[in-house]
Amino acid sequence: MRADGVKALFFDVFGTLVDWRSGVARSAEAVLKPQGILLDWLAFADAWRDQYQPAMQAVRSGSIPYTKLDVLHRQTLEKILPQFSPNEIKAIDLDRLTLAWHQLDVWPDVQAGLSRLRHRFLIAPVSNGNTSLICDLARRNDIHWDAILGADHARAFKPMPQVYLAAVDGFNLIPSECMMCAAHSSDLGAAAANGLRTAHIARPQERAGFSESAPRLSVDLTAASVLDLAAQLGA
Amino acid sequence: MRADGVKALFFDVFGTLVDWRSGVARSAEAVLKPQGILLDWLAFADAWRDQYQPAMQAVRSGSIPYTKLDVLHRQTLEKILPQFSPNEIKAIDLDRLTLAWHQLDVWPDVQAGLSRLRHRFLIAPVSNGNTSLICDLARRNDIHWDAILGADHARAFKPMPQVYLAAVDGFNLIPSECMMCAAHSSDLGAAAANGLRTAHIARPQERAGFSESAPRLSVDLTAASVLDLAAQLGA
Repeated sequence: MRADGVKALFFDVFGTLVDWRSGVARSAEAVLKPQGILLDWLAFADAWRDQYQPAMQAVRSGSIPYTKLDVLHRQTLEKILPQFSPNEIKAIDLDRLTLAWHQLDVWPDVQAGLSRLRHRFLIAPVSNGNTSLICDLARRNDIHWDAILGADHARAFKPMPQVYLAAVDGFNLIPSECMMCAAHSSDLGAAAANGLRTAHIARPQERAGFSESAPRLSVDLTAASVLDLAAQLGA
Repeated sequence: MRADGVKALFFDVFGTLVDWRSGVARSAEAVLKPQGILLDWLAFADAWRDQYQPAMQAVRSGSIPYTKLDVLHRQTLEKILPQFSPNEIKAIDLDRLTLAWHQLDVWPDVQAGLSRLRHRFLIAPVSNGNTSLICDLARRNDIHWDAILGADHARAFKPMPQVYLAAVDGFNLIPSECMMCAAHSSDLGAAAANGLRTAHIARPQERAGFSESAPRLSVDLTAASVLDLAAQLGA
């Protein structure tokens, strides 16, 4: 078993555990439609998400200090809105809209899968989402994390090595005792480069053209869902 | 009500939620007695705890970088042991003994009180204990925190302002929306100086001569237990 000695499971969140695309589209519609704004809501979600990596890159490159994702989301929202709506939108509605990322639903296998895994492993999100965002997602979806690790904890963004290593250290473990579980090969590759084990969780439904049905590199485990991961790990 | 607008409750842990004294004494006995070492176990727990503030002071003063409490506990253990035992103790047993601080029991009102409070508030420990320690205490005592904030999150020790302010920021709140709940006036005074609300929880049983039956400064609320706090806050 390639998970022998694993004591903690780290989870990517956006895409791996939660369906950000339909959730952001739904929240955007709830905020903007009553103001007479009609958009292609899924295209809006995609455009916002497309700003995600470039925004974090400014932190990774050192050109700006660590800035939590909620703040980056608000900045990128203001950047993309003119493409979608000629109307001026009030600051209070931009704040509400930014909270769309706190109101996402997990994929159907996630709650039960994590609940089973927690009987045998420490579990923590290692996401680029900030603590408040991840905490709101956990409340909404009834998830009981042992701790919220990830970007805020390390004050850096994945795939910077310190995010994975700070998470390992948070649990007083060594990298080989921790397994990064994610739907994205780039995340798993960075985790493996820092000595962590890796599990790929297939999320073909995340977003057409971007999703991975299978990992693009060698991993320790591949799973069809979090429940499948629990079954494979005997949890 | 002096708690109007409060959205998050922050809890001190050692003394306020857990009985460190009898817990450390019990674990020390479990590790050392089988090796023929007999001590005054409570005096040993007190001596170890007496090294707590001086050890953190080296971080607060800037003379050493942030060092998690497990590491400080291990260092102070080596410092005090010669006073108690002439025997050489193996490193592996010193490691086990250091984990005494991960194996403490909560006071009888804590689990039910926090469980009730979580229905109405975000709840987080804001302790000088490191993440792994706090996480092990939560598992042992069936506590569901929204996030583990505190020293590791801020990379500083209370009563440094950044510990309270990083906790507030972790939940995307402002200081007056957060209430620090603790059995120690020094902790509450520092929280109040940074704009947080304060609740004193009486723990006369913590340690004779050190415990506070009542706060030594003005606070927003005083409670006889976490359950009493829940009742006063309508949770």
